[in-house]
Amino acid sequence: MEAKDQIKLFTPGSVANISCGFDVLGFCLDPIGDIMKISKTSKPGVHIGQISGEPLPTDPKKNIATIAAEALLEEVNSPFGFSIDIDKRIKPGSGIGSSAASAAGAVFGINKLLGSPYSNKELIRFAMAGEAVASGAAHADNLAPVLLGGFTLVRCNETLDVIKLPNPKELVATIIHPQIELKTLHSRAILKTTVPLKNAIQQWGNLGAFVSALYTEDYDLLSRSMQDHVIEPYRSMLIPKFKDLRNAALQAGALGSGISGSGPSIFALSKGLETAKAVGMAMEKVYTDLDLAHQIHYSVINTEGIKILH
Amino acid sequence: MEAKDQIKLFTPGSVANISCGFDVLGFCLDPIGDIMKISKTSKPGVHIGQISGEPLPTDPKKNIATIAAEALLEEVNSPFGFSIDIDKRIKPGSGIGSSAASAAGAVFGINKLLGSPYSNKELIRFAMAGEAVASGAAHADNLAPVLLGGFTLVRCNETLDVIKLPNPKELVATIIHPQIELKTLHSRAILKTTVPLKNAIQQWGNLGAFVSALYTEDYDLLSRSMQDHVIEPYRSMLIPKFKDLRNAALQAGALGSGISGSGPSIFALSKGLETAKAVGMAMEKVYTDLDLAHQIHYSVINTEGIKILH
Repeated sequence: MEAKDQIKLFTPGSVANISCGFDVLGFCLDPIGDIMKISKTSKPGVHIGQISGEPLPTDPKKNIATIAAEALLEEVNSPFGFSIDIDKRIKPGSGIGSSAASAAGAVFGINKLLGSPYSNKELIRFAMAGEAVASGAAHADNLAPVLLGGFTLVRCNETLDVIKLPNPKELVATIIHPQIELKTLHSRAILKTTVPLKNAIQQWGNLGAFVSALYTEDYDLLSRSMQDHVIEPYRSMLIPKFKDLRNAALQAGALGSGISGSGPSIFALSKGLETAKAVGMAMEKVYTDLDLAHQIHYSVINTEGIKILH
Repeated sequence: MEAKDQIKLFTPGSVANISCGFDVLGFCLDPIGDIMKISKTSKPGVHIGQISGEPLPTDPKKNIATIAAEALLEEVNSPFGFSIDIDKRIKPGSGIGSSAASAAGAVFGINKLLGSPYSNKELIRFAMAGEAVASGAAHADNLAPVLLGGFTLVRCNETLDVIKLPNPKELVATIIHPQIELKTLHSRAILKTTVPLKNAIQQWGNLGAFVSALYTEDYDLLSRSMQDHVIEPYRSMLIPKFKDLRNAALQAGALGSGISGSGPSIFALSKGLETAKAVGMAMEKVYTDLDLAHQIHYSVINTEGIKILH
């Protein structure tokens, strides 16, 4: 029976931080993601099958998907092995959760083929093993939205206490990706290890308001709370024309705009597709004027997360 | 007509910070508060009438109620003056918003006698003038719950962007007040001006979860999120036996416990009055064993704020 021996998945990108929630907030993207096919094999262990799209390591010790899968298989006795094909469509280092998509997809697919011994929330901790390789320190802020869908909050990264938040229905994301590569490792190194207390208070005031706004669908409050006085002043230095881009987005009607994860992609959230598109055009103009190659994406919030294709 | 010439108020105490929300979160207490009577006078300006209960300055330039009232009257033309009687039942320096009760009560009462030109939210900025005298820096974290009722979040202290949060119905607060005096000024001076980024992330993860738990009435999540890795390690040094007290509260079934505002009062939140009383007994035992005089209070969350008595 093919359905039991093989699974094909759409494993989406995600936006972490969302300006006011460094290392804790994230949301899941819809049309942007990888295609993974995971098949049972008689040979035990996890193997890389076909790789297409963006280049990825074929050594299972270096590939994020296989590292995450191995973490899962260390806890579960499997009578068979797995082969993973990846059509990598999210460019690694783009800042929209490329590694999280691979790690989450691998454990999600294998869990399904094993008869779902774990909940999606439980799978986060296995996927963390893959994330650790990508970013130097394991964080669940991209994994949580991919595995749970929608907006998520990581209350505690150590105990993986993760909460799914509600999704105001009219939100549409605009993502612009300048074609420069930025490793999470490097954009983490630029951060200070301490924060002025004053700025930290601003940040948690904004985060609390953001969470409240998701529950009450208060788009104005959402807009006022999407500020980052802690991380953005440093990370934005690594992103060409960040301030111009953010200002262009806000002037075109975006509720908020900031660095997606560790960058270099910049996201904006708008009310409705029409505004999101106007925001995208305004952002594109900044990079077109600069002659900087870039990609633009539009996405509703994906409340489901990973999708089973067949 | 007496109703128009004079107003009598119950102006309640409040708990700021609630462990995970330093300077931004607060909730309003119910049976603990001052009684204020505000009367129109033919003489212009604001005057102190009778003071009973705890001693207060009778010089209008030093009394928090009159300072807040003057701030309001600077913006409004009043054809008459006001006299304020205060039965001060909240001990100043106890950490349950004594100054906020006076400042909020004064502006609330005068606003009513003027025919309510301002909303309660707008009154916060006038009451801030009184708070500034009390704590050295004006914060709205006690004023917001007194003027709006229930749980409140100050998203931004500069623009006074304040949000009223929902109130899980079964919450009961226990407050223990050791009879030592601690000035907000001093317990603010003990704080560091910077915070390790790691701890700040923990704090905003907890705050986001706390806000979510209020909306979903998730008492377990509320409990897990009531932690303070930023302020409590310093301020708790000023409070006798703080750790023992907090542990006693948690062991007796409290959802969480921490310093109320800048202390020395310690609060706990429990599900139901029975648990709140058991928590109170456990906390009292710590201070009885130490022979330290103390007061204990129990309170449901006051969702209304200031109450008009007649």
